Amino acid sequence: MTLLDQLASIVGAGYVTTDPDVLAGRVVDQTGRYRGHAQALVRPGSETEVAAVLRACRDAGACVTVQGGRTSLVAGTVPEHDDILLSTERLSAIDAVDTAERRVRAGAGATCAAVQHAAAAAGLVFGVDLASRDSATVGGMASTNAGGLRTVRYGNMREQILGLEVALPDGTVVRRHSQVRSDNTGYDLTSLFVGAEGTLGVITGVDLRLHPVPPHRVTAVAGFDDLDALIATGRRLRDTDGIAALELVDARASALTAEHLGVHAAVSGAWQLLVEMAGEADQTDLLADVLADAELTGEPAVGVDAGASQRLWQVRESIGEVLGWYGPPLKFDVSLPLSDVARFADAAAAVTAEHAPEAIPVLFGHIGEGNLHLNLVRCNVSGESERALYTAMMNLIAECGGNVSSEHGVGSRKRDYLTMSRTDADVAAMRTVKAAFDPTGYLNPAVLFR
Amino acid sequence: MTLLDQLASIVGAGYVTTDPDVLAGRVVDQTGRYRGHAQALVRPGSETEVAAVLRACRDAGACVTVQGGRTSLVAGTVPEHDDILLSTERLSAIDAVDTAERRVRAGAGATCAAVQHAAAAAGLVFGVDLASRDSATVGGMASTNAGGLRTVRYGNMREQILGLEVALPDGTVVRRHSQVRSDNTGYDLTSLFVGAEGTLGVITGVDLRLHPVPPHRVTAVAGFDDLDALIATGRRLRDTDGIAALELVDARASALTAEHLGVHAAVSGAWQLLVEMAGEADQTDLLADVLADAELTGEPAVGVDAGASQRLWQVRESIGEVLGWYGPPLKFDVSLPLSDVARFADAAAAVTAEHAPEAIPVLFGHIGEGNLHLNLVRCNVSGESERALYTAMMNLIAECGGNVSSEHGVGSRKRDYLTMSRTDADVAAMRTVKAAFDPTGYLNPAVLFR
Repeated sequence: MTLLDQLASIVGAGYVTTDPDVLAGRVVDQTGRYRGHAQALVRPGSETEVAAVLRACRDAGACVTVQGGRTSLVAGTVPEHDDILLSTERLSAIDAVDTAERRVRAGAGATCAAVQHAAAAAGLVFGVDLASRDSATVGGMASTNAGGLRTVRYGNMREQILGLEVALPDGTVVRRHSQVRSDNTGYDLTSLFVGAEGTLGVITGVDLRLHPVPPHRVTAVAGFDDLDALIATGRRLRDTDGIAALELVDARASALTAEHLGVHAAVSGAWQLLVEMAGEADQTDLLADVLADAELTGEPAVGVDAGASQRLWQVRESIGEVLGWYGPPLKFDVSLPLSDVARFADAAAAVTAEHAPEAIPVLFGHIGEGNLHLNLVRCNVSGESERALYTAMMNLIAECGGNVSSEHGVGSRKRDYLTMSRTDADVAAMRTVKAAFDPTGYLNPAVLFR
Repeated sequence: MTLLDQLASIVGAGYVTTDPDVLAGRVVDQTGRYRGHAQALVRPGSETEVAAVLRACRDAGACVTVQGGRTSLVAGTVPEHDDILLSTERLSAIDAVDTAERRVRAGAGATCAAVQHAAAAAGLVFGVDLASRDSATVGGMASTNAGGLRTVRYGNMREQILGLEVALPDGTVVRRHSQVRSDNTGYDLTSLFVGAEGTLGVITGVDLRLHPVPPHRVTAVAGFDDLDALIATGRRLRDTDGIAALELVDARASALTAEHLGVHAAVSGAWQLLVEMAGEADQTDLLADVLADAELTGEPAVGVDAGASQRLWQVRESIGEVLGWYGPPLKFDVSLPLSDVARFADAAAAVTAEHAPEAIPVLFGHIGEGNLHLNLVRCNVSGESERALYTAMMNLIAECGGNVSSEHGVGSRKRDYLTMSRTDADVAAMRTVKAAFDPTGYLNPAVLFR
């Protein structure tokens, strides 16, 4: 029996496809910059089917690339070895929300938005939100330990995950669904599989922590000419109990986006800080006090009701999509010490000017964690030139004391730069773990390590 | 050259001892219930010395048991194989506190209290506090992912650890000292080593997150006759922004302790709830509102200044020590779904009555996380009878949906019960990790697995 016959016998013939048109749409990533090869797409319907697919592929010597929403932006789901594509899309069930313990179990293929809706319907909130919410799956978000717009309040995906089930490369399934929050019974395998980018196993379902909806909420956008002044204010706000979002947007990104949306930028200045505060107490006065102490370019725009808040968020929310209209930008997801962000911003513009003079560097992101997105818009370099630019920027990030991978993961895009943020001993330890779980290296072979 | 000569050449002869009196004091745990055997005590002075000690022991085929403050309560540091004892006590340096990024680097041998003092001197607070603060080391606390009195607000040790360095069983040192908070560059080895109870490597230093000191604070003790009523109130308080501590104390523990301290119990009732709230806003009214809705046995005792708060804490803080005056209690550190705590309390009393009729079961602990400490005071059973009692209680915990190990770890005390809270596939995955890092199994061989 061929591998494809075996896979059909596991998942049903209707869920195995070799249609070139279907595969062509699946071997390319969201940015359109990265494209690979695959021999088939398999869509299992349960964790036991996932495990059986893995076992069959391993035994056949085939490589497997796991796909969720394919929104990693670091080519984390682009197959390089004529792989079997394993999509988690059918594992999309969301159980009833446990409102007493504030948790919900979701299949890996459930989208972020679907979990958000389920939480909202139960009067709760899911702690992770990101621009790709309609496509990104909780399995993929767990695998990359995704962050997003609410990390400053609730943490990344890892902090939301109370339990999970994962199909290992050897075809066994580990189910770790704890009913209790306090759990020190052996190794924290949950934290290991979360963020492993599918290289140690396929996460098939997660138990997610949910949060109460804060009764009070206030949003503001403030303009700054000096980035370090913005960061000082951001640091002060980050450290309040009520911080709910803290986003940086540079004026170029804001202007491009506002123009496309047909709206006016809320404030002037080279840099904008978007802050949201929320909690059991009204934070409006505290926020006003902090902003009154800051060197702003003018009056901040403040919104206390949902409509006003949404308008203030509109530009920030739309940046990624709008920038994409200029062609796929070259994207860098990095984290930096706050004290080095301003230096990085200047130096990154210089690196861009040197390697891609026509490109427009825009900087935005989650300033609370120093997790920033540098996008080079109209960046038409490719091949070796792109590689030289990418490497120069990675060197700059490392030189600034930053991490080459923040919330998107390493994927295949950054695997050559792993040692910029990790020592050789650390990478060796990671390889020890990989080899222990996947000795033949057939699972997500393009990802994380070369 | 003998192993002991080698060790002396690594750490200096003064830091290797085979003195039977010294060893006798080190092979027994804090409770006095567990005692082992060791051939020597080695006290390295740096992480490179730790790594060299590990390499030498591995090459000589000697087992190593790592010791911090030896306060695990689950025989996590009791050697069973005539081991080399490796103490981290000399790795006690604490660097200057980084007040801007609110972090501090501490050697594994620094005590919890020393880190607390360093944080306080910088106007900050360390997020973990526990009764053994003067002995427990941050290395040991990281290795067991210790919890304690502040978990409901700040999380366990894992949530405090921004980076670490660890000497692996092969004698290499992994240094993962991130300067940034957002870090998704490869596997979360930090979370893996934290809570691994020293079986995967020896944590030699940690970068700890620190927190701002909340300007407002209020403490209360409230009495309940019905445990489920207490839990309903606790659940409501747990879910407030300002929760800072949430402790359960049963009347027997409270009475025994208050008597020894020569004070009156603050409130009447079979169960007491100690709650502390803190934050940028004053929480006194909110706390009063929640308690006004509860079925209390009488007026709660409320303290708003430091002295009054300290008096309310006094009984809870002293329980562990006072109970020890009746001889070493048989201790169970468990976590339970909140909905099953009351059932567990009744059933645990019945199990105690059956197996150790003379023992007094007392229940207290961190009700916010369902993490409770059952202590059997005046429990004189030993040998097979103790084992039967212990196993019956473990069965009960599992039957209630709880975890056999909460904040103390598995140690050697609970290794036979691991599968009550973990599936076979899960334990197999843990063994895969252990074998990958420590193929000969020489490091902390008594711990976690049999």
